Amino acid sequence: MGERTWTVYLSGEIHSDWRDQIKSGCSSKNLPVDIVAPVTNHEASDDCGVDILGDEDSPFWKDHKGAQVNAIRTRTLIEKSDVVVVKFGDKFRQWNAAFDAGFAAALGKPIIVLHDEDLTHALKEVDAAALAVADTPDKVVRVLDYAINGNL
Amino acid sequence: MGERTWTVYLSGEIHSDWRDQIKSGCSSKNLPVDIVAPVTNHEASDDCGVDILGDEDSPFWKDHKGAQVNAIRTRTLIEKSDVVVVKFGDKFRQWNAAFDAGFAAALGKPIIVLHDEDLTHALKEVDAAALAVADTPDKVVRVLDYAINGNL
Amino acid sequence: MGERTWTVYLSGEIHSDWRDQIKSGCSSKNLPVDIVAPVTNHEASDDCGVDILGDEDSPFWKDHKGAQVNAIRTRTLIEKSDVVVVKFGDKFRQWNAAFDAGFAAALGKPIIVLHDEDLTHALKEVDAAALAVADTPDKVVRVLDYAINGNL
Amino acid sequence: MGERTWTVYLSGEIHSDWRDQIKSGCSSKNLPVDIVAPVTNHEASDDCGVDILGDEDSPFWKDHKGAQVNAIRTRTLIEKSDVVVVKFGDKFRQWNAAFDAGFAAALGKPIIVLHDEDLTHALKEVDAAALAVADTPDKVVRVLDYAINGNL
Amino acid sequence: MGERTWTVYLSGEIHSDWRDQIKSGCSSKNLPVDIVAPVTNHEASDDCGVDILGDEDSPFWKDHKGAQVNAIRTRTLIEKSDVVVVKFGDKFRQWNAAFDAGFAAALGKPIIVLHDEDLTHALKEVDAAALAVADTPDKVVRVLDYAINGNL
Amino acid sequence: MGERTWTVYLSGEIHSDWRDQIKSGCSSKNLPVDIVAPVTNHEASDDCGVDILGDEDSPFWKDHKGAQVNAIRTRTLIEKSDVVVVKFGDKFRQWNAAFDAGFAAALGKPIIVLHDEDLTHALKEVDAAALAVADTPDKVVRVLDYAINGNL
Amino acid sequence: MGERTWTVYLSGEIHSDWRDQIKSGCSSKNLPVDIVAPVTNHEASDDCGVDILGDEDSPFWKDHKGAQVNAIRTRTLIEKSDVVVVKFGDKFRQWNAAFDAGFAAALGKPIIVLHDEDLTHALKEVDAAALAVADTPDKVVRVLDYAINGNL
Amino acid sequence: MGERTWTVYLSGEIHSDWRDQIKSGCSSKNLPVDIVAPVTNHEASDDCGVDILGDEDSPFWKDHKGAQVNAIRTRTLIEKSDVVVVKFGDKFRQWNAAFDAGFAAALGKPIIVLHDEDLTHALKEVDAAALAVADTPDKVVRVLDYAINGNL
Repeated sequence: MGERTWTVYLSGEIHSDWRDQIKSGCSSKNLPVDIVAPVTNHEASDDCGVDILGDEDSPFWKDHKGAQVNAIRTRTLIEKSDVVVVKFGDKFRQWNAAFDAGFAAALGKPIIVLHDEDLTHALKEVDAAALAVADTPDKVVRVLDYAINGNL
Repeated sequence: MGERTWTVYLSGEIHSDWRDQIKSGCSSKNLPVDIVAPVTNHEASDDCGVDILGDEDSPFWKDHKGAQVNAIRTRTLIEKSDVVVVKFGDKFRQWNAAFDAGFAAALGKPIIVLHDEDLTHALKEVDAAALAVADTPDKVVRVLDYAINGNL
Repeated sequence: MGERTWTVYLSGEIHSDWRDQIKSGCSSKNLPVDIVAPVTNHEASDDCGVDILGDEDSPFWKDHKGAQVNAIRTRTLIEKSDVVVVKFGDKFRQWNAAFDAGFAAALGKPIIVLHDEDLTHALKEVDAAALAVADTPDKVVRVLDYAINGNL
Repeated sequence: MGERTWTVYLSGEIHSDWRDQIKSGCSSKNLPVDIVAPVTNHEASDDCGVDILGDEDSPFWKDHKGAQVNAIRTRTLIEKSDVVVVKFGDKFRQWNAAFDAGFAAALGKPIIVLHDEDLTHALKEVDAAALAVADTPDKVVRVLDYAINGNL
Repeated sequence: MGERTWTVYLSGEIHSDWRDQIKSGCSSKNLPVDIVAPVTNHEASDDCGVDILGDEDSPFWKDHKGAQVNAIRTRTLIEKSDVVVVKFGDKFRQWNAAFDAGFAAALGKPIIVLHDEDLTHALKEVDAAALAVADTPDKVVRVLDYAINGNL
Repeated sequence: MGERTWTVYLSGEIHSDWRDQIKSGCSSKNLPVDIVAPVTNHEASDDCGVDILGDEDSPFWKDHKGAQVNAIRTRTLIEKSDVVVVKFGDKFRQWNAAFDAGFAAALGKPIIVLHDEDLTHALKEVDAAALAVADTPDKVVRVLDYAINGNL
Repeated sequence: MGERTWTVYLSGEIHSDWRDQIKSGCSSKNLPVDIVAPVTNHEASDDCGVDILGDEDSPFWKDHKGAQVNAIRTRTLIEKSDVVVVKFGDKFRQWNAAFDAGFAAALGKPIIVLHDEDLTHALKEVDAAALAVADTPDKVVRVLDYAINGNL
Repeated sequence: MGERTWTVYLSGEIHSDWRDQIKSGCSSKNLPVDIVAPVTNHEASDDCGVDILGDEDSPFWKDHKGAQVNAIRTRTLIEKSDVVVVKFGDKFRQWNAAFDAGFAAALGKPIIVLHDEDLTHALKEVDAAALAVADTPDKVVRVLDYAINGNL
């Protein structure tokens, strides 16, 4: 029991170190997890479309190309994941995080949402689709430890 | 050809009259559409959980109960829809709109996104999952008229 | 909006009049619902297998035949339903009600659970899969009225 | 033939040693099985929600949080399983076991039910969805040995 | 309850009048059923491919063309059905009937098998996938009457 | 039997009158079919994207916008169809027709391919996924008449 | 290319050595295949239900129990397979083979049917759902070699 | 992150060395990809049906047999793939490439289309279903490198 590897997708905020905290937390507990995520280099994520496939005059098509190239990664990894963690912060609109949550919900993936208490009202529809709502990365690690190994 | 009724779900912003514009636009063209939507009365949408199922001390659970009751309506109607239109405005965070878009995308529903040009960058992942991006309700109506009747 | 008929499956307890209360509640509000349910005549439900398909010496196979004939009805109707309501009482073990809830959950159906407060701990896994937990039939009717018409 | 590992989920009763009997039975026959199960520490299973994610005043929400955290584990493992074994005993209401059976049935998983003969009538709907009904853990092991290796 | 129409597919034997018996039985009970079936004119069923799409020298391709044209009808109707009834007789090999049963089983359709007792051993795998096994058309009608209306 | 309406999607070539021939053939036989199709006005089909949603400098994005708007119609109608007919002619590349055939095949839709004999080798992969290959619209009508009514 | 292992299910006739021929043929070509099959010991296959789960007076329930225990193996393995081979001989009715073919067809599995030419007419519906029809085990091996490695 | 192997299917044109370019590009970047493809030996691909399963007089059936044997490989590999790349050139009609694209699109696979700019208009429906459109094999490799490793 518990020997299989769980794939955990970390969606959302890219301007804080929450992913590193979850990774190091999982490492220190030796959790059998394969942590996956979108490309978190903001500039690369914005530029990948035009950088690889050719420049665009219009900002709309630059964004479109980039977002679709990123979707090759994100949709593939979300579909392969056992658990999807979605983090919301107080900066930027983060509609992509909410989009990922909706996408994961329709696929029936267990969702853990990570956000501060002051975002509760704004995130109520996302939280309502989750199996856990945490306010620190450490709590996410503990939920994973419990779900995988039964440790409290 | 074209005699069947198309169910169109209107997700997102509830503080402008865009739904009425789309409905009256569809009416004036006699489009065979059944327009459905979440409950758009803001207060009712916030209070439905505690109002019906009993009060809560904690704002989190008040929101949770309400959001889940709303989900009975929204998930059912999105799954029954042929086309999902998602509107983003410049007020509020509207994570529920992005959540609906992700949910619809995973179900393979054709998505039309409606927003002003200045939201293009923030909405690039949502737009990338759409089959049309419009900046006025009238354009949404025209897309529907074309998709249903072939009229330009 | 709201003109389509919603199919609502009422699963569980057959020894109280909760189904009638929900039906009359829906009627008095003119809700566009098609209420469906398992066969609620206890004796017929127990005997249908052997009565139609031939007698059995063993109680196990009598039950088996009957339960499978009932499943023709229940699985078909649950799959056609928009909302599944599951009622638990304090008599009998009602494992079929919990089975229906699990079946509906795996199909992604919105679930409303109806039970008294003293069953909360025993039903926690079922409640955790529901979008609403009510303790009176009237609250179920009000949830349906809100989900269908937006009325509070 | 038979070299692949079968994942077997053991759902239900947590107050007897039936899981250990099945595990040691599989071990003594060298069956290529990966046995998985919910968290079977009763206290941990009840407390995990509030222990990790924060305390609750209301027993309902304490249970809700815990049940949802447990669902991260149980739904993931049931979906990964090749066979689902569900055990019913004569204590407690065990609605979660019946819920798991319904969930597994809707996913098309082969189900083996384990219970004493005196529960036959109460479990007839669950048994009707099973491919085998056994009254001892040893018989479950023998069914697995036959299904995997063809041994009688 | 019970006002919706159930679509019932009658697969299998085409050389006895069992379909007419089921139809007249359903009519006399006023069951709300839409009875569908493969083309039961043996000659038309054999010749449709070459008759419409052009002759073939090889018997294999004549059969292939015909069977595929018939499949346009049969697969469409089985997928639209609520219940699939499969009849086996003692003449011919009727592999198409068993094929339909397997097809319906994989789609999760409730199956009723109709055959004489002396075919029990040969049909054990098909019966094992059914929710009812009957030996007369009248019993099939009674199962439908019970499943649809709860009448015994 | 046969009273339900079959939805038939006519994909492919838009520069000959094959759709009209199929429609009038179905009418003259009173077939209960709802014939649907992509927008067959070539100019409208090319221009719909930029005409409704705003002009584009680049031919690539003009085509992209138009093709996606057309996809709102085509994917919706293919998914609702019971049978998909795909016509190939000797002009143009008609990659959209082959795309529709692949899309329909993955959805499990019965496919009828319509083309002249000299295209047999080039279309072998498409034909291999079809249940009928016809070389005249009249033969398509006869296949539909047989599939729906059993008439030869 | 071709380094992954293909799982191949061999359904049908158990009274000739066709499975051994396919296995040795695959071995001699070093094909990366994992050959799986139902239990082919006729007596074990008939007796497994009552032998493990307890005796039955009625032949029907003896067969039922056995067939359901066998189904734990067969459905699991068919669902895990990449290719399903179904063999028909001239003895016995082999309805289980045709059932497996229908089950595999509904799951979208590529099917290879193996039978002598004189069974062509009786098997036309099964052949019509197959991607290859062979009359010797050697041809099945060659089809697998081509499909996996491109060798002719 | 990124340690798992991605399966990439390369569909389409077989008369240029684009597959080798992608393979060597992936090798030089050490991408963790498993590159799969249809059989690209044109003659073998045309002859496999009759060569293995027996000769045919009619060119139609020769093609049919061959295309179906090839489909055992192609459908299996497309369904196992994480990303599908489809290449169109200016020779031949390549309807099979467009068919594969439609098939992959309906399965929700991320699609990368590879073609020269002058095919843009003819391929607009295929491009509209893609997440990236490239005009050189090197750009495809770079898209894969970004999607898998986040490298720009």
